[in-house]
Amino acid sequence: MSPPASAAKLRVGIAGLGRLGRRHAEALAFSTRHVELVAACSPVAAELELAAAEFGIAPEHLHADFAAFVDDPAIDAVVLVTPTSLHADQSIAALRAGKHVFVEKPLALNVEDCERVLAVAAEHPQQVAMVGFVRRFDPSYRRAAEDIEAGRIGRPFLVRSQTCDRNDPQGFFVRFAPTSGGIFMDCSVHDIDLARWMLGRPKALRAFASGTIALHPGLADCGDVDNGLAIVEFEGGARAVFYASRTLPHGHETTTEVIGTEGTLQVGFGAARDRIERRSAAGVHHEVLPDFFERFREAFALEMVDFVAACRGERALTLTLSDALEATRIGLAITRSLRSGLPEAV
Amino acid sequence: MSPPASAAKLRVGIAGLGRLGRRHAEALAFSTRHVELVAACSPVAAELELAAAEFGIAPEHLHADFAAFVDDPAIDAVVLVTPTSLHADQSIAALRAGKHVFVEKPLALNVEDCERVLAVAAEHPQQVAMVGFVRRFDPSYRRAAEDIEAGRIGRPFLVRSQTCDRNDPQGFFVRFAPTSGGIFMDCSVHDIDLARWMLGRPKALRAFASGTIALHPGLADCGDVDNGLAIVEFEGGARAVFYASRTLPHGHETTTEVIGTEGTLQVGFGAARDRIERRSAAGVHHEVLPDFFERFREAFALEMVDFVAACRGERALTLTLSDALEATRIGLAITRSLRSGLPEAV
Amino acid sequence: MSPPASAAKLRVGIAGLGRLGRRHAEALAFSTRHVELVAACSPVAAELELAAAEFGIAPEHLHADFAAFVDDPAIDAVVLVTPTSLHADQSIAALRAGKHVFVEKPLALNVEDCERVLAVAAEHPQQVAMVGFVRRFDPSYRRAAEDIEAGRIGRPFLVRSQTCDRNDPQGFFVRFAPTSGGIFMDCSVHDIDLARWMLGRPKALRAFASGTIALHPGLADCGDVDNGLAIVEFEGGARAVFYASRTLPHGHETTTEVIGTEGTLQVGFGAARDRIERRSAAGVHHEVLPDFFERFREAFALEMVDFVAACRGERALTLTLSDALEATRIGLAITRSLRSGLPEAV
Amino acid sequence: MSPPASAAKLRVGIAGLGRLGRRHAEALAFSTRHVELVAACSPVAAELELAAAEFGIAPEHLHADFAAFVDDPAIDAVVLVTPTSLHADQSIAALRAGKHVFVEKPLALNVEDCERVLAVAAEHPQQVAMVGFVRRFDPSYRRAAEDIEAGRIGRPFLVRSQTCDRNDPQGFFVRFAPTSGGIFMDCSVHDIDLARWMLGRPKALRAFASGTIALHPGLADCGDVDNGLAIVEFEGGARAVFYASRTLPHGHETTTEVIGTEGTLQVGFGAARDRIERRSAAGVHHEVLPDFFERFREAFALEMVDFVAACRGERALTLTLSDALEATRIGLAITRSLRSGLPEAV
Repeated sequence: MSPPASAAKLRVGIAGLGRLGRRHAEALAFSTRHVELVAACSPVAAELELAAAEFGIAPEHLHADFAAFVDDPAIDAVVLVTPTSLHADQSIAALRAGKHVFVEKPLALNVEDCERVLAVAAEHPQQVAMVGFVRRFDPSYRRAAEDIEAGRIGRPFLVRSQTCDRNDPQGFFVRFAPTSGGIFMDCSVHDIDLARWMLGRPKALRAFASGTIALHPGLADCGDVDNGLAIVEFEGGARAVFYASRTLPHGHETTTEVIGTEGTLQVGFGAARDRIERRSAAGVHHEVLPDFFERFREAFALEMVDFVAACRGERALTLTLSDALEATRIGLAITRSLRSGLPEAV
Repeated sequence: MSPPASAAKLRVGIAGLGRLGRRHAEALAFSTRHVELVAACSPVAAELELAAAEFGIAPEHLHADFAAFVDDPAIDAVVLVTPTSLHADQSIAALRAGKHVFVEKPLALNVEDCERVLAVAAEHPQQVAMVGFVRRFDPSYRRAAEDIEAGRIGRPFLVRSQTCDRNDPQGFFVRFAPTSGGIFMDCSVHDIDLARWMLGRPKALRAFASGTIALHPGLADCGDVDNGLAIVEFEGGARAVFYASRTLPHGHETTTEVIGTEGTLQVGFGAARDRIERRSAAGVHHEVLPDFFERFREAFALEMVDFVAACRGERALTLTLSDALEATRIGLAITRSLRSGLPEAV
Repeated sequence: MSPPASAAKLRVGIAGLGRLGRRHAEALAFSTRHVELVAACSPVAAELELAAAEFGIAPEHLHADFAAFVDDPAIDAVVLVTPTSLHADQSIAALRAGKHVFVEKPLALNVEDCERVLAVAAEHPQQVAMVGFVRRFDPSYRRAAEDIEAGRIGRPFLVRSQTCDRNDPQGFFVRFAPTSGGIFMDCSVHDIDLARWMLGRPKALRAFASGTIALHPGLADCGDVDNGLAIVEFEGGARAVFYASRTLPHGHETTTEVIGTEGTLQVGFGAARDRIERRSAAGVHHEVLPDFFERFREAFALEMVDFVAACRGERALTLTLSDALEATRIGLAITRSLRSGLPEAV
Repeated sequence: MSPPASAAKLRVGIAGLGRLGRRHAEALAFSTRHVELVAACSPVAAELELAAAEFGIAPEHLHADFAAFVDDPAIDAVVLVTPTSLHADQSIAALRAGKHVFVEKPLALNVEDCERVLAVAAEHPQQVAMVGFVRRFDPSYRRAAEDIEAGRIGRPFLVRSQTCDRNDPQGFFVRFAPTSGGIFMDCSVHDIDLARWMLGRPKALRAFASGTIALHPGLADCGDVDNGLAIVEFEGGARAVFYASRTLPHGHETTTEVIGTEGTLQVGFGAARDRIERRSAAGVHHEVLPDFFERFREAFALEMVDFVAACRGERALTLTLSDALEATRIGLAITRSLRSGLPEAV
């Protein structure tokens, strides 16, 4: 079983306490074994106050300055839930400071930044460096991957995968469009990683994309769309098709279908929020998951469990930085194709 | 395959052209092979006019009088869709006139009438006599029965079955309550027949029933309910539980679950009207079948196909009059129990 | 209601009595009102024998020669279930002979042939000319179209649609690959027509396709694939993505999703063969539709009902020859893209 | 939000570290806020060793003797996961020792024992006393109850509920049959509590039960069955029907349907283990939950959260000891009916 509770706990510091950061902090503080949340970093005073009040972090470990945070000798590992543009440099600084690193996805919006992180990580082989592709920790996706590995669908050759969010009538995300990297880098990067995982990590060759703006004309300014389709061609014949949307009327629907020569697997279809089915004069209906957070609640928790276990040397990660690099590379080719209207080499 | 179209067609007359009668007439006139609808009988002038206009029945074969109808030499077989109280006597008259007989369920509201029909049918072994337990002809129920016969669920020992209608706010059925035999004789008689079929026709020993009036207080006058539950005990240990309702808010839901030692079968759950799933801000929803007619549209057609085939000697019926007698016997014990509050011997 | 049965029946002749032809013949002979199947045409003697034996067609109306068939004065309309390469010329001959025409899809494998048929049809405006896009007659697709027309999903802007067949281990279809026009012309032409219908017939601008051979290497010789993906861009921003497969392990699955600004519709997901759900040590399972024929059994019947009704002048068709022309045009652009690897203008 | 982490933690001791006890201990030790697991009690040495090794409980708080445990001044609250026959006396002892009490269901196998606990609890109104009806804490059941309270199904008048376990070929449970109180006291007590909750706590009047032994003849010795059906009649017309089984072939299936005058709710149907749907030559299938533990994993955690919150005075419990008394009373009437074959007064 697991090691005795008396073993030294992993001491973690978190940078960024926005919505997702707070979720990771809660997992670390209250529901993950063998770990202590001991430090926090944020340029926002309110976030540090929350870190003290909610998670009991001592004043000397509340950092407004990232450099001080990363050098805090009280921590063994950092969890970075900061803006994407900071991911690469912060990961590198943390690795150089001798800390294990968990960084939210995407690792970076360009290949060079990813490669810089990989290079530094290679210099620190004893430290864990992990990117938050949360779907890898969802029990359903895990079992699907196990089924495929066990040969239960024969040879997988096609993946259809989507990340679709409920429409936000306020169009909050439009403000982030200029820095998000576009819909494919922001949403489809998960599907890209999944497709590679399910297909056995084949080499991607080409990508073609097309999209449309259904409800948020403001996206046009930065060349983005609110609904996008992409086809990726892999060496050896495998294919993937992705759909990303910001405008689903009913909720969040993240689904993936893996098609093999002897079977297919569908993960996430139906998007049921719970185990209730309602019947009324309007027919039979069920509620849908409102968002990514609720869909992947369990996966967010298990992700921290695995990060902690890897840092403590209990088990190795199967998700590597080079998976993150490849997902970025493919996402960028798709994004270029959306703009050029032509297939783009990966 | 089927016999050549040149073979003599079966000539059928129909008695009763209400909603269900018309449906049978349409099946016979337009979509069943090897049959001609040549005569009709009804005390209602408008129904005979419809028989002429819609189905092209010649004036000399439109009968207001049942005795004349049953003796019409132009017909080989009769389909009786008349009030339940007439079923037994009309079936007997038709058998004695040398006709094959299809009679709507239930065969009768008392055991004596059923037995009289069985006795006369026994005197006319060359003639088909069949009761309209339409679910027996539904492809899903048929396949379920085949699965059970093939041993795919091991030994079946428990049936849960329901016949539930959409609430009619006008409470039309309340007017028929005094003559319908009550909710169990009217609705559950199908479930009773199914349970016997799926369990291999065990002997019923006892029945217990309980019910409530949810929406139609007018039923109290004749001791009826709009929602009823019943448990039936069979020799050898098998059990069945039935639910009948007149008040479902969403549509018609006829479902049956057969539980065996190695598997279970569920027929009809979900009650989807079609193959459309809708997603909107309200969630995921699908429409439901509005009524028995739409649920069993295909079965009504196949029922006539089997009746015609049996009359033409092409294949034997598996559904017998003694199945109808047993269903009546059990339905009556349930109905007695609803009134006595005690288990009643079947 | 419907007109009296005494009205003159439409007299139909059928050309081609293969699997699908026989199905149409059965519908016409046994389950469609106001019609008589009076003639048949086939170069195969066995098919004409079957026409006589099964459908009672008189010897003088059994034609080995198409020219004689099309001039048979006993027929008002023809149903053409012949090889695709003959569709255009036969349709033209029948129109010129004064007959109504139902022709199986696709109308032709090139735009010129389609246009020739349209031109001749325009010269015979009193005659019905209809292409067998059978999904248009499926009740679920019809209701979906009505929902969209009624504005229930807001503005539809994206269609995802697939036609996927169960794998045939013998690869029977590989033999037809050289003349079928390829997977997109053979399978996706239905999805293309549906997408145009559901999106309100926007003008198609460009198409991109990619594919792979999963199980049938013999297809490589004629540049075909057994799994294909395509994206189509329409004027005004609407998009469609198609998936066609010859290799599904579990059965036939034809599904379509229409995404609008206020709702989405999914047609055909789950592919349940019947209303049975089975539970055993292996979990919960249901059977799947084996093929297109069983999926669209009702639609094939309703298609003939509508053709007959249109010929009798009872109601107009909403499906036009120019819909068939556009579907061909888009299918050809997709097919060119599969070969060039580049987006192709429609 | 929640109170600051600096507030004093609730100190809990657990008695019984079998399968379910260990689950509660894990929740208390690792994933519930504001609580510390500080003591354990068991007559089994191995369980105390586990308490030390796994949960870090100090030697001086490991008790073989219940009297010493309940008097341990280091604890504020006890969680009792001991044999049913001890529940009442241990609860009383803990209450008298000034501790809050969580006791597993059922509270007792006779009404007198329940009433003794209620009387002692009434003397200690400042202490929490709670019975582990875990389904009350399942998010789906909670939402269903909220829907009903908000009037969304009109007036609820019928509950159909089942607790069905996967068959254990070893028949482990047969050994416990003599002390479990029978299938209805062991399994249906949950359904009984739910039915009362969903129907608004009406007074139960009568119960009728019937059962059968499908696979485990050893149960006959103690008058028990492995499949049982029961109908309960409530004052005011509401009805409930329960099904309990030890022999489902496919997994654990706990489902509840609440039928109201304007809608119905179904909780738990389908029993899907995860969000994966598999397609293969065998059709479409999904895995099923293996057992009660996996079905109610989240509810077991939330149950401890609510117990801790109640002990800390943060919120009141809606589940009372008198709910447990009523569930026992109804369960006993059902059990008497199973033996007498007659309806029994509650």
